[in-house]
Amino acid sequence: MVRRSGRRPGNQDTKQSILEAARQVFAERGFDKASIRAIAGEAQVDPALVHHYFGTKEKLFLASMNSPVDPAEIIPQALAGPRDEAGERLVRLILGVWDSPAGTAAVALIRSAMSNEWTARLMREFIVTQVLRRAVAELGIDEEEAPVRAALVATQVAGLAVVRYVLKVEPVASAPAEQLVAAIGPSVQRYLTEDLPGVF
Amino acid sequence: MVRRSGRRPGNQDTKQSILEAARQVFAERGFDKASIRAIAGEAQVDPALVHHYFGTKEKLFLASMNSPVDPAEIIPQALAGPRDEAGERLVRLILGVWDSPAGTAAVALIRSAMSNEWTARLMREFIVTQVLRRAVAELGIDEEEAPVRAALVATQVAGLAVVRYVLKVEPVASAPAEQLVAAIGPSVQRYLTEDLPGVF
Repeated sequence: MVRRSGRRPGNQDTKQSILEAARQVFAERGFDKASIRAIAGEAQVDPALVHHYFGTKEKLFLASMNSPVDPAEIIPQALAGPRDEAGERLVRLILGVWDSPAGTAAVALIRSAMSNEWTARLMREFIVTQVLRRAVAELGIDEEEAPVRAALVATQVAGLAVVRYVLKVEPVASAPAEQLVAAIGPSVQRYLTEDLPGVF
Repeated sequence: MVRRSGRRPGNQDTKQSILEAARQVFAERGFDKASIRAIAGEAQVDPALVHHYFGTKEKLFLASMNSPVDPAEIIPQALAGPRDEAGERLVRLILGVWDSPAGTAAVALIRSAMSNEWTARLMREFIVTQVLRRAVAELGIDEEEAPVRAALVATQVAGLAVVRYVLKVEPVASAPAEQLVAAIGPSVQRYLTEDLPGVF
């Protein structure tokens, strides 16, 4: 990271420095091993200031990713309900976020993750620690199977986002959300909870 | 497109101009509506020279995409065989290409398509006209259902590529190919040939 030189006249500048430090430390160490202390050290500020501006490490991570939503809030909400419809609900949730005004930020995030190794690392940490880990916990999936199931879900969900919002392949690009929920939900369900012969 | 100025000393330079013109015309008009004549006009060369260097429009398209493989050769080969295992064979084929030395070029292509609107258009044309159209024809899929089925396959396959090769989410990133074939093949099969209630 290139350090800024000279004075930092206002809070915005300090916040920006903290966010840059956070991106660097999260990308280098991963979410679990990154600490507020290390991020504060990188930004050359007091750790208390990081807490003051951003709250928890999770909130700081979301801010550093420019995440338009907080998975801690929406994932449990989406997955509550009949277990055998969790796949459909997850697809519905994701389309709801991406089809909303917040989706623009999410598309920018995907584009950036594809072209930049560090953003890709952040995106991976985000998907694994913020989205999939919660989804797996919410559904009570076997701990040994969880990482594979979660990553398989990621293949389907990331591909849906890429094809609908980035590559814009028709008719998926302009299909009604519920048609995609019906088409893709069962694949996600299979990855989440069904038997996967040849895998486990 | 920024036109080059000055002399074009050798064939390489002319070929490069043709490739740049081809990218522009394919992205603007789509594969079907782009003509060798229009590409030659854009490159300010004789159409016969385009044919001389690149052969057919399809070959020129593959060259302009830096495609490491020719889908016309490998898709029919992959899909020949029992219809109810086509999904597995398609996933196996794709992993075979991406896991090979040619995969590096394919990863570069995906990265580029995500960050650049014009490359995204080219990628979409490539997926739709070169990969999916062939796959659908090979399997004799109903013409009305084919575009939806093909785009659904694209969501799963693009997502697999993104998660395994670009984001590198474990354990998918380093899973043996056959484990992924077993896990993801049935989803692709469903999109290709099975009933999709709520979609059709």
